[in-house]
Amino acid sequence: MSLWGRRADALEAAKESLPGCLLTTNLADAIHLADVVVLCTPVAAMDGLVVDLATSLPTTTPITDAGSIKSSVVAKLEARWGGRFVGSHPVAGSEQSGFAHAREDLFDRALCILTPTERSDSAALETIRALWLSAGCRLHEMSPADHDLCMARVSHLPHAAAAALVHAARVRGAAWKDFAGSGYRDSTRVAGGPPAMWADILLENRTEILAGLKDLQSALGQLEVALAEGNRGEVESFLATARNERLALSHPK
Amino acid sequence: MSLWGRRADALEAAKESLPGCLLTTNLADAIHLADVVVLCTPVAAMDGLVVDLATSLPTTTPITDAGSIKSSVVAKLEARWGGRFVGSHPVAGSEQSGFAHAREDLFDRALCILTPTERSDSAALETIRALWLSAGCRLHEMSPADHDLCMARVSHLPHAAAAALVHAARVRGAAWKDFAGSGYRDSTRVAGGPPAMWADILLENRTEILAGLKDLQSALGQLEVALAEGNRGEVESFLATARNERLALSHPK
Repeated sequence: MSLWGRRADALEAAKESLPGCLLTTNLADAIHLADVVVLCTPVAAMDGLVVDLATSLPTTTPITDAGSIKSSVVAKLEARWGGRFVGSHPVAGSEQSGFAHAREDLFDRALCILTPTERSDSAALETIRALWLSAGCRLHEMSPADHDLCMARVSHLPHAAAAALVHAARVRGAAWKDFAGSGYRDSTRVAGGPPAMWADILLENRTEILAGLKDLQSALGQLEVALAEGNRGEVESFLATARNERLALSHPK
Repeated sequence: MSLWGRRADALEAAKESLPGCLLTTNLADAIHLADVVVLCTPVAAMDGLVVDLATSLPTTTPITDAGSIKSSVVAKLEARWGGRFVGSHPVAGSEQSGFAHAREDLFDRALCILTPTERSDSAALETIRALWLSAGCRLHEMSPADHDLCMARVSHLPHAAAAALVHAARVRGAAWKDFAGSGYRDSTRVAGGPPAMWADILLENRTEILAGLKDLQSALGQLEVALAEGNRGEVESFLATARNERLALSHPK
């Protein structure tokens, strides 16, 4: 296994935990013997990386990524690499970043969504499936567009809402922080994630997220009207519908 | 210690865990020797209970509650009981209810907010402080109005947002449930709470919650505009502000 990184100090931090792994800032060294290449940079950084890869990667090596958005990335990278690129999105991780927060069991039974298209090379797809299975993931395949719609609702919109909740709490300027219980902590946890990465994600998937924001605001508006009218039946029904859906979630992992 | 409950079967469930505690459905039996009475019913049920209490409670016993809203409750109960009633809000618990979800360490270092007013009797306040301290709580005192403003932002509004997020995910009708990761789970956890209780809370505190919903929608609108304009700087700045505030939260308990 080889690990390419942009910064030598970031690789240095990984040294002890990855014995036998080639750690290098030289892209050609990292990939020339690779069976499969996994792009784990921010979505916005992939363009530049793709240019660099082109000069040193053998012509058949399968390529995948680990990004949170698929339509735009798959369109770009498939145009460049053809069917040997197949998009992946391992749905795992936290609001933390950097090697210091690596967890050995991160992928154990985690969902990994693959987004093959009609152009996907079947041998490349097989290799990429095997890669994630060997990491411990459960696999699911869907189109890039379905992926982005689904993630807008279960990941990107919750992130936007978490950030907006923090804004809505701070505008009153009170010492509200001291009184936040576990409900607030959990509801806003994801807002602790890296702003630059999340700005990329929200912008890349903005068509779906704008549609999601409309639906979220419409739901909030429905509750607002019910509260303003003192319509207890409607408030309780709104909450009961949400509760039933929420409790119907399968257990984690 | 004595525990009054409306239903015998609910008390039966508590029997084994509370040896030496008088468990009864007869209110007079439960309270006639009490040093302090804690009302733990839903906010909406307190009115009826107060009438029943009046007939059997000694005239000086301090009374408190454990409800999530204070202005309306304190106004009502103080009008009825005078300074011997002092409002309490132990900020602890989860989306689960019923004795089966009781936890022995629920109050360990949990925040308990007391909301004494100018009318509060100092001996009653001392007794109620001692009660929560003996349960392991940290105490904080503020006015009922400040309490409700603060809780609207850190508890009630997150609940509304969690329910609205579930609505926004379900309107697309996709099998989104299978793809929810820990971000979605945490962001929407509180929406699993009992709808009847939360309808009471949201309605009782609706003035503050409607103001909070306006601020939440305004924050979402700000993000919406930035995304629609593709204004990366503004999106990242919105997320960075939220992240900084979120990370500045003191550690739980």
